[in-house]
Amino acid sequence: MTASDTSKAANQMWGGRFAEGPDAIMQAINASIGFDKRLYAQDIAGSRAHAAMLAATGILTDSDARAIGEGLLTVLSEIESGQFQFKVELEDIHLNVESRLTEIVGEAGKRLHTGRSRNDQVAVDFRLWVRDQCDAAITGLTGLMRAFVAQAEAGADWVMPGFTHLQTAQPVTWGHHMMAYVEMFARDRSRFEDARRRMNECPLGAAALAGTGFPIDRHMTAAALGFDRPTANSLDSVSDRDFALEFLAASSICAMHLSRFAEELVIWSSAQFRFVRLSDKWTTGSSIMPQKKNPDAAELLRAKLGRILGATVALFTVMKGLALTYSKDMQEDKEQVFDAADSLMLGLAAMTGMVGDMTANRDTLKAAAASGFSTATDLADWLVRSLNLPFREAHHVTGTLVALAESKGCDLPDLSLAEMNGVHPGITQEIYSVLGVENSVRSRMSYGGTAPDQVRAQIARWKPLLG
Amino acid sequence: MTASDTSKAANQMWGGRFAEGPDAIMQAINASIGFDKRLYAQDIAGSRAHAAMLAATGILTDSDARAIGEGLLTVLSEIESGQFQFKVELEDIHLNVESRLTEIVGEAGKRLHTGRSRNDQVAVDFRLWVRDQCDAAITGLTGLMRAFVAQAEAGADWVMPGFTHLQTAQPVTWGHHMMAYVEMFARDRSRFEDARRRMNECPLGAAALAGTGFPIDRHMTAAALGFDRPTANSLDSVSDRDFALEFLAASSICAMHLSRFAEELVIWSSAQFRFVRLSDKWTTGSSIMPQKKNPDAAELLRAKLGRILGATVALFTVMKGLALTYSKDMQEDKEQVFDAADSLMLGLAAMTGMVGDMTANRDTLKAAAASGFSTATDLADWLVRSLNLPFREAHHVTGTLVALAESKGCDLPDLSLAEMNGVHPGITQEIYSVLGVENSVRSRMSYGGTAPDQVRAQIARWKPLLG
Amino acid sequence: MTASDTSKAANQMWGGRFAEGPDAIMQAINASIGFDKRLYAQDIAGSRAHAAMLAATGILTDSDARAIGEGLLTVLSEIESGQFQFKVELEDIHLNVESRLTEIVGEAGKRLHTGRSRNDQVAVDFRLWVRDQCDAAITGLTGLMRAFVAQAEAGADWVMPGFTHLQTAQPVTWGHHMMAYVEMFARDRSRFEDARRRMNECPLGAAALAGTGFPIDRHMTAAALGFDRPTANSLDSVSDRDFALEFLAASSICAMHLSRFAEELVIWSSAQFRFVRLSDKWTTGSSIMPQKKNPDAAELLRAKLGRILGATVALFTVMKGLALTYSKDMQEDKEQVFDAADSLMLGLAAMTGMVGDMTANRDTLKAAAASGFSTATDLADWLVRSLNLPFREAHHVTGTLVALAESKGCDLPDLSLAEMNGVHPGITQEIYSVLGVENSVRSRMSYGGTAPDQVRAQIARWKPLLG
Amino acid sequence: MTASDTSKAANQMWGGRFAEGPDAIMQAINASIGFDKRLYAQDIAGSRAHAAMLAATGILTDSDARAIGEGLLTVLSEIESGQFQFKVELEDIHLNVESRLTEIVGEAGKRLHTGRSRNDQVAVDFRLWVRDQCDAAITGLTGLMRAFVAQAEAGADWVMPGFTHLQTAQPVTWGHHMMAYVEMFARDRSRFEDARRRMNECPLGAAALAGTGFPIDRHMTAAALGFDRPTANSLDSVSDRDFALEFLAASSICAMHLSRFAEELVIWSSAQFRFVRLSDKWTTGSSIMPQKKNPDAAELLRAKLGRILGATVALFTVMKGLALTYSKDMQEDKEQVFDAADSLMLGLAAMTGMVGDMTANRDTLKAAAASGFSTATDLADWLVRSLNLPFREAHHVTGTLVALAESKGCDLPDLSLAEMNGVHPGITQEIYSVLGVENSVRSRMSYGGTAPDQVRAQIARWKPLLG
Repeated sequence: MTASDTSKAANQMWGGRFAEGPDAIMQAINASIGFDKRLYAQDIAGSRAHAAMLAATGILTDSDARAIGEGLLTVLSEIESGQFQFKVELEDIHLNVESRLTEIVGEAGKRLHTGRSRNDQVAVDFRLWVRDQCDAAITGLTGLMRAFVAQAEAGADWVMPGFTHLQTAQPVTWGHHMMAYVEMFARDRSRFEDARRRMNECPLGAAALAGTGFPIDRHMTAAALGFDRPTANSLDSVSDRDFALEFLAASSICAMHLSRFAEELVIWSSAQFRFVRLSDKWTTGSSIMPQKKNPDAAELLRAKLGRILGATVALFTVMKGLALTYSKDMQEDKEQVFDAADSLMLGLAAMTGMVGDMTANRDTLKAAAASGFSTATDLADWLVRSLNLPFREAHHVTGTLVALAESKGCDLPDLSLAEMNGVHPGITQEIYSVLGVENSVRSRMSYGGTAPDQVRAQIARWKPLLG
Repeated sequence: MTASDTSKAANQMWGGRFAEGPDAIMQAINASIGFDKRLYAQDIAGSRAHAAMLAATGILTDSDARAIGEGLLTVLSEIESGQFQFKVELEDIHLNVESRLTEIVGEAGKRLHTGRSRNDQVAVDFRLWVRDQCDAAITGLTGLMRAFVAQAEAGADWVMPGFTHLQTAQPVTWGHHMMAYVEMFARDRSRFEDARRRMNECPLGAAALAGTGFPIDRHMTAAALGFDRPTANSLDSVSDRDFALEFLAASSICAMHLSRFAEELVIWSSAQFRFVRLSDKWTTGSSIMPQKKNPDAAELLRAKLGRILGATVALFTVMKGLALTYSKDMQEDKEQVFDAADSLMLGLAAMTGMVGDMTANRDTLKAAAASGFSTATDLADWLVRSLNLPFREAHHVTGTLVALAESKGCDLPDLSLAEMNGVHPGITQEIYSVLGVENSVRSRMSYGGTAPDQVRAQIARWKPLLG
Repeated sequence: MTASDTSKAANQMWGGRFAEGPDAIMQAINASIGFDKRLYAQDIAGSRAHAAMLAATGILTDSDARAIGEGLLTVLSEIESGQFQFKVELEDIHLNVESRLTEIVGEAGKRLHTGRSRNDQVAVDFRLWVRDQCDAAITGLTGLMRAFVAQAEAGADWVMPGFTHLQTAQPVTWGHHMMAYVEMFARDRSRFEDARRRMNECPLGAAALAGTGFPIDRHMTAAALGFDRPTANSLDSVSDRDFALEFLAASSICAMHLSRFAEELVIWSSAQFRFVRLSDKWTTGSSIMPQKKNPDAAELLRAKLGRILGATVALFTVMKGLALTYSKDMQEDKEQVFDAADSLMLGLAAMTGMVGDMTANRDTLKAAAASGFSTATDLADWLVRSLNLPFREAHHVTGTLVALAESKGCDLPDLSLAEMNGVHPGITQEIYSVLGVENSVRSRMSYGGTAPDQVRAQIARWKPLLG
Repeated sequence: MTASDTSKAANQMWGGRFAEGPDAIMQAINASIGFDKRLYAQDIAGSRAHAAMLAATGILTDSDARAIGEGLLTVLSEIESGQFQFKVELEDIHLNVESRLTEIVGEAGKRLHTGRSRNDQVAVDFRLWVRDQCDAAITGLTGLMRAFVAQAEAGADWVMPGFTHLQTAQPVTWGHHMMAYVEMFARDRSRFEDARRRMNECPLGAAALAGTGFPIDRHMTAAALGFDRPTANSLDSVSDRDFALEFLAASSICAMHLSRFAEELVIWSSAQFRFVRLSDKWTTGSSIMPQKKNPDAAELLRAKLGRILGATVALFTVMKGLALTYSKDMQEDKEQVFDAADSLMLGLAAMTGMVGDMTANRDTLKAAAASGFSTATDLADWLVRSLNLPFREAHHVTGTLVALAESKGCDLPDLSLAEMNGVHPGITQEIYSVLGVENSVRSRMSYGGTAPDQVRAQIARWKPLLG
């Protein structure tokens, strides 16, 4: 195969498709069954609730409703066992299910669609699906938070460098760094909870767009499907997708958090840092360079924000400037949300696994923390506290001492008291206790600070909340 | 000036800048005072709360704290009266304020920075600013919802076409269409409320990144600044910006809703639709074509989603993969949020104005609603309800009747009963009441449906909630 | 199935996956064979070129090279006939092909990987694939331009309203509007041509990242695969993906153009506009509302920009801030490009079909063009040309005349000469010829103007270029 | 000032604005003079070319044209000297200039607008501006490439680790790494060249949208403004902005490249890597931690992709689905492009400065390159080359030797020949020359490989091209 062959192959594919004529192109662009079959469980649950309500309100006979209810369970088991034949000519999941139902139960099946439309049907199906994903994200985030808490508990008092600009700034504790992510993922979790609560209104009964003249009971179907209430405006119900956008936005923020820890893992597992060792499960090696533990999973998680943000931008762009109510553009909503949700859930599971079995190199962390005048701030604070210097002056004295140490090629604790007094006569022996990294972190007792006792207090706060 | 002149001008600008040497370039890229001066009120409020707390905990003397507190008010009034001289060499709003404070109150000013750092200072300033914008969005959305409710109330029973695919589908009411946007903007409002609640934790006291050894009282500053509590992890406090991303995401969703109504306004005010007349305040004319009322404001609002979504993508991309804690990349957060917030608030105000004084062409709307077999669904529903036909069969009978009308070049109500009975013998005189658009909309009495009584019920639900 | 069931199903899916342990998660996140098998033809072409070069340079024996070359053709035919068994445990397309090759030809197969690495192998495969897509886009765009030219030719002198702000501004010709899109898609085509030319350098031979010590001939493989030359830096070759980003950016711009015409089709086919009639092939109907021809294909094409822009944002975000050279993040490149390319090619094919068989309603277009003082500019221009009025004064006189007509409820040509002279005494009978829409468009003879002769000149320019 | 005060301030701002009534809001949303005054030089150049052409074609008298031409130069010098009074009530740069011109030259000024419209005027102004930015980007990129070539020349044979996954893979040369960026930025430069060429068509003369009946000479104005030709379709000319999108896309790709080197600089200047030392000009320190050289400029450059990509997404979203021709939405184009261009030019200048005076730590680089079995691939290649082992077998032997070395806690060159022969008897003394990092890089002589001679060949190729 030559270059022109591969080129021909590409053209043939599209040329060929083209040659099949508009019907094939239109089918390719129009049919949704290829992806919306993922909504089968939601579609069947919605139809069962609808049928039960039609019977309760006298729109359908009890026997028809019973036949439909049982027939739908048969369809469900056919799908779950892999026997169901999805047909592209039936376009979408709704018609595929209804058509099979009618094969099974006959006439009654044709009565199911009374008082509803595909517009509210897909709205309820998709909303149920996204709601389920909120639940899955909440569960996944809870597991991930547990993994970080476990790491924090093991190393509540291990000292490591606290970075700004990837430059050592002050010593902090491993536990504190781990707990920072617990806070981030806790906010992510609460975002999914809020999104779930806000989307938890049932659009079923909006019908095509205007509501229906059948005496349906929307509160009954809403309750049956676990919704808090029916939606209050039928036009809005079939045409808005803000619940999907909110899910995508929350997912993007969560993926941003994942990308930050993933970046740290990549840097920390470099030969130059060696802060952590990832387990073999989450790395790939090289058969000839055994020192290589490529942090593939971390890199892929770092990349997931791209994928999820891309999906978010896609759906925003699709929804921009669409006149009410339903337009076919909105069919583009599902694949974006499906892909983003899959990426997020896989990312949460992988990160939970990686955090669970990574190993911190405690000695390397401590050595890194102790270098580079990392306790200079402690020195300045001591000057303020013990000698009552204004902060800006204490800052200046500290700078002079650090410059002195640097010129001597030593670290701060290596300066003699005489040398220190040369810079400021008030400094006493007490200063040396302030300059050790262990003491430094122990002193940061402000609420939410890095002191091991503060870290343990936060762990104690979180553990019961995470079950 | 020739073409090459304009080109030279451009090169000169950069070349010139370049010639000034690295210092000028670094200053241009590094200084933030050009934009972060918008945080002055928040910065001063934060410093006042900090000083009061330092006094209460004995870290500062009462007299120093008093001097600082009063000095900061002086700085505030200097800024608000336009007397304050912002200096680029002082880089940012924090140093500009503190430097001026020290000029005013002397020594005490140098003690203000005790137990804090620019990292937690900017975090609290920016969070206060974004929180204020949430409040502004909530207020703006409430006003906009009121404007839509007023339109809905005026035309609760005006009939208009309900569209899917921009094709008439079923008659709906003007009031119902207006109330659809009330629902959307209500969800937007609740998103800003949730975001506000979630971000309402005070990062002040996180210091540089590790907390502080001074015995500060973070609960006190948190309360003084209206926060629900202090943040629980100092590393997270100075390095995360998810509150800004959540604000941007909520703004993007809201801007998406604005873009949809803006699109409708553009289409509805075309010569072909003539559904609404926008007031002169929100349109521009052409001095030679007086029929032209270009819906400029609507077009600009349609475009705002681009701007706000762009800001959202920008900040996500900036935050992607940043190792903890603070990195200078994060300085890019403010301009994006400032611009998005300005665009949103202006957009809400403009849309409120436009909705408030637009005029619906009631007759045009009704005529459009009545054309095109828009009550075919009502006919089908009558067949199900009155003749007990399965929905799928009723659907078929209706299709046949519509085809018959179309072949005769008339509309459905123009068919005689005999003609109707030729298609289905069970049809009775009653059918004609079903086929009128007024009756059609009146019949949609399902909860959230388009019937005027349903619309009025929703208006009655909303009016007290909107004050 | 109740609501909690669907929820359980979702959790089970991930929970279940999780229960399978890290191996399953890692495989799900890490393996690429699920999508990169689309590169099979490119992978085999690259390997064949590599083997031939290894033989020519004496690194491989001729008999080994021959065995490899033939074995690869066998693999190719196995894949194309559907017999090939892709194995997830072999991770990607490269190992799947090489492993099968070795089964077929034995020992020789193990020699194929000499002097190369998976890093340059995937780089060349993917580049060949994207290059093929450039060709496909060029072909597709050429076809689309032809369809627009055919529409333009049919209606070079049909008059329609020229819109600004969706308000009639001046009369233009149908042919001119069609040719506007030819210009846009021509620029799109030239963007794909530029992108193709720029990416047409062969990365094969960059090996893992540093080049190789084997005396390979990179110019030979480059030529064999249709590249203009080998890439000049091995680090860059395996780590950059700007060719993919450029393809995505060009695709996004093209999709933006598609979205604009799609929007016009949606608006033009509304009951209020009725400017065009789309053929049944590209619309879906409603079985009960035969007047409904939902422009589904147009709506889906309008949405494609979202999808392609989303992919673009995704890959930019993935590539942001990646240290050289290859990182696993980059594995996220393919699915985005695959999806965007599929969307674009399908969109081009569908738009070509729609444009090919749409029908303009010539009378409706002309009537719309003639209303609303659309020739006021012609009147002003006549005043400048014939009476030598400064433009700004001619503008003012015209405004007065239009206001007069409006107050009388008539259009401009309905004013008497006396009435006109009341506003400006210099106006003569000649003015009436200027006010007709046919004359108006005929007069716009400036290069690129809407005059039928200008439109025909542009058609004549394009037809030979489009073959 | 309390928390509720800051909140009140925010509401007041908008409330206040609101209170000013719709006029103030509309002006705020509608006027563009606040930003489009940046187009003054382009606007004046365009008007001068237009006036000269009007005279040449007899549409204007020579004396009028001369007065206009000179008057415009006066306006230009007023603007450049800061004397010009921009007026918001004149909305935009075009009316501001024209109004002042008429003040200066009287009646003639009113004749300038003959045969054009604001629609084509802004189109030509903005296109000239973007074209100038292409030139600025080309110049800036050339300077940046020179800086990289200078670094490459200084260290063509310095050895450093070549990374994949941020793990050492093989030794490479510093010069080779620097030249990788020359390749990237060269492609960026060629993208701006292509964009410039494609956009270099003059829209002036498209008038409002339809062309004009005045006998203008569009080829003359095109030539005067340095365009290759006039645009060929007037509708397209006033309504498309793909040239701006292409500029933004090229800028985004370039910013992606900047972000990658910025990330390397951040990592390389960490205490753990110490690969480079940035000069003080591009870093900020901490007055108390002198070891801290925060790589602020690098971090800000890493972030610029966010800003530029955000602008790109913004304009794509704005342009999505806009019906032809001009809509006010398009007014949102300028600020996005202005901000992106400013960010890019500043980024290029800053990166050029940083690359120009950064210092590589040659010893640290070499030591890092030599660790971690980085020459294992060389060993495998030697086995293939010298012992004719199939690559896959050579790979296996190498893996065994590396495992042996690892178990002994030594590196590959520390194994004795006997130990090596224990794994494979064919290995000879020659192997030791292969295992040194200097030899390793010297051996990579394939075209584009990392061998110093290859690097020097590429430097020699580039230097004359960069002037």
